[in-house]
Amino acid sequence: MRKNPVIAIVGATGVVGQEMLAVLEELAMPLSELKLFASADSAGEYYKFKNSELTVEELTEKSFAGIDIALFATSAELSAKFVPLANAAGALAIDNSSHFRMHDGVPLVVPEVNIDAIKKDTLLIANPNCSTIQLVPVLKIIHQHAGLKRVVISTYQSVSGAGKAAMDELWNQTLNIFNQRDVQSDVFPRQIAFNCIPQVDRFMDDGYTKEEHKVIDESRKILDLPELRITSTCVRVPVFVSHAESVNVEMERALSPVELMKLLDDAHGIDVYDALEYPSQLDIAGTDGIHVGRIRADSSVPHGLNLWIVADNVRKGAALNAVQIAKVFVERFA
Amino acid sequence: MRKNPVIAIVGATGVVGQEMLAVLEELAMPLSELKLFASADSAGEYYKFKNSELTVEELTEKSFAGIDIALFATSAELSAKFVPLANAAGALAIDNSSHFRMHDGVPLVVPEVNIDAIKKDTLLIANPNCSTIQLVPVLKIIHQHAGLKRVVISTYQSVSGAGKAAMDELWNQTLNIFNQRDVQSDVFPRQIAFNCIPQVDRFMDDGYTKEEHKVIDESRKILDLPELRITSTCVRVPVFVSHAESVNVEMERALSPVELMKLLDDAHGIDVYDALEYPSQLDIAGTDGIHVGRIRADSSVPHGLNLWIVADNVRKGAALNAVQIAKVFVERFA
Repeated sequence: MRKNPVIAIVGATGVVGQEMLAVLEELAMPLSELKLFASADSAGEYYKFKNSELTVEELTEKSFAGIDIALFATSAELSAKFVPLANAAGALAIDNSSHFRMHDGVPLVVPEVNIDAIKKDTLLIANPNCSTIQLVPVLKIIHQHAGLKRVVISTYQSVSGAGKAAMDELWNQTLNIFNQRDVQSDVFPRQIAFNCIPQVDRFMDDGYTKEEHKVIDESRKILDLPELRITSTCVRVPVFVSHAESVNVEMERALSPVELMKLLDDAHGIDVYDALEYPSQLDIAGTDGIHVGRIRADSSVPHGLNLWIVADNVRKGAALNAVQIAKVFVERFA
Repeated sequence: MRKNPVIAIVGATGVVGQEMLAVLEELAMPLSELKLFASADSAGEYYKFKNSELTVEELTEKSFAGIDIALFATSAELSAKFVPLANAAGALAIDNSSHFRMHDGVPLVVPEVNIDAIKKDTLLIANPNCSTIQLVPVLKIIHQHAGLKRVVISTYQSVSGAGKAAMDELWNQTLNIFNQRDVQSDVFPRQIAFNCIPQVDRFMDDGYTKEEHKVIDESRKILDLPELRITSTCVRVPVFVSHAESVNVEMERALSPVELMKLLDDAHGIDVYDALEYPSQLDIAGTDGIHVGRIRADSSVPHGLNLWIVADNVRKGAALNAVQIAKVFVERFA
């Protein structure tokens, strides 16, 4: 890996790709060149990066020649096809899709939790699901100090997790309600304006959604706790940006809310709120941190806590986490 | 109690009072006369009931002469003052406020669960909190068949639970966002449009909100399980009507999703959804039932289930439940 690598954003025109572009600049990621790839439809579009304008190129099988790091902000289907091509051309792929996350030998990384899973010869690193990224740094700290016994999660997920068209759908449905026009649902299975939908992604055979499985399976892998007792219910809410999670934790040993607040306050990347304060999705959109509030004892078990965890799903939940991984990789191995 | 009692709605012009008016007609509640009381501001307003028009009268200390049943849809403060006056005048009070709910000797009733708590000489019956009403009928059935061990609840509560001004606030904030005007928050502690607020009612000393305590304390009282292990996180969402709840249940004995679906399907007032179907708040607004979907096994405990429970908080969560109580009282004791 070069100290100033050539970096590519694959899927540069989507919600996450655009945020990667912003975060690369904000984090002053070292690079000698940045290339933007997207579908033929978007080829030729211009985007500002630092003091230059970059032209989007059409993604093809030959796009990866000369690329050192490819940041993938593409669908699982596109990643499945193009990540191996990037690797074959010698590029490190950091993939935001779900496709490779649970594959054996593919590190699934949240830098605050398991950055040591990446090695000098790693060619593919998976970026976890947004709902998982904001959860595991908090769970890790609790586990280190009190032993995780069981975790029950209910999510309040914004529409940006489903991409640009989903954000437009919430906006247009709401506008049509005010204008007394018909409301159309294309991205979501029902009207999302002024409604909550207890289905994120498709249903699996056991009645859980794929999103609920992601939270469970990815948390176990990242925390390296394959037997962790954890369950989840994932719900889409009519909010544009940021995911919130109501998290109930049962622990092996005592850990008071005040002790946990101190531990979280000392941790990198986590913002803690006092008992009567709390983060809400709207307030923290655009921030980098994982925001934790409503920390309180749950007396229904010997050692229990309730928490409210909020993060910007487009930044920490996707683009920022991916760029943080790239930055550490260059710092360690270039 | 007369077979055709004189009934009063106290707080007749609010969200719940108006719904009581509608439900009294829909349920063909037997009555000889209906009187509407509200503050001096609303006195003189007319409302349609069956084929007549009723005039709202100002609520005074002398309003209860000749009233057999007073349905209170007032604040805790107003109920505290006027319920004793209604009782002193010989009227049965059915109170939707939180004021008397946890008082010893005051029955807290959801007809499907504990209607036998009312007696011929009962003068005051408390109507539970909306979040509790939709929860306990389901918990009772689970307890009867598999023994409740522990319950973890996260709510998705609509703004109508906070009254008319709260509904206007969601509407006006949303409209102002589209019109690029400033957004004002008066009813809620922050902007509710396109946001979720993890605070319903005020904070208590232990870091829980009063609403979270209501769900816990009232469930224990109604189910007559004073030691029930139960915890809750209550969240306001930008939805106009209906509350949803993500409910995790740990049981003493095995009860499969299919078995529970059969039991709920046989129960009065509960609508069950197949594995791939589910209720959402918008769909079920205006209905009388308690809607239960997303029933699935939780393998993080030996006997666990996850459920998604939705009901119209203004109807079953308030007005309908109160009128159902009144109807049973007349059927049994008149």
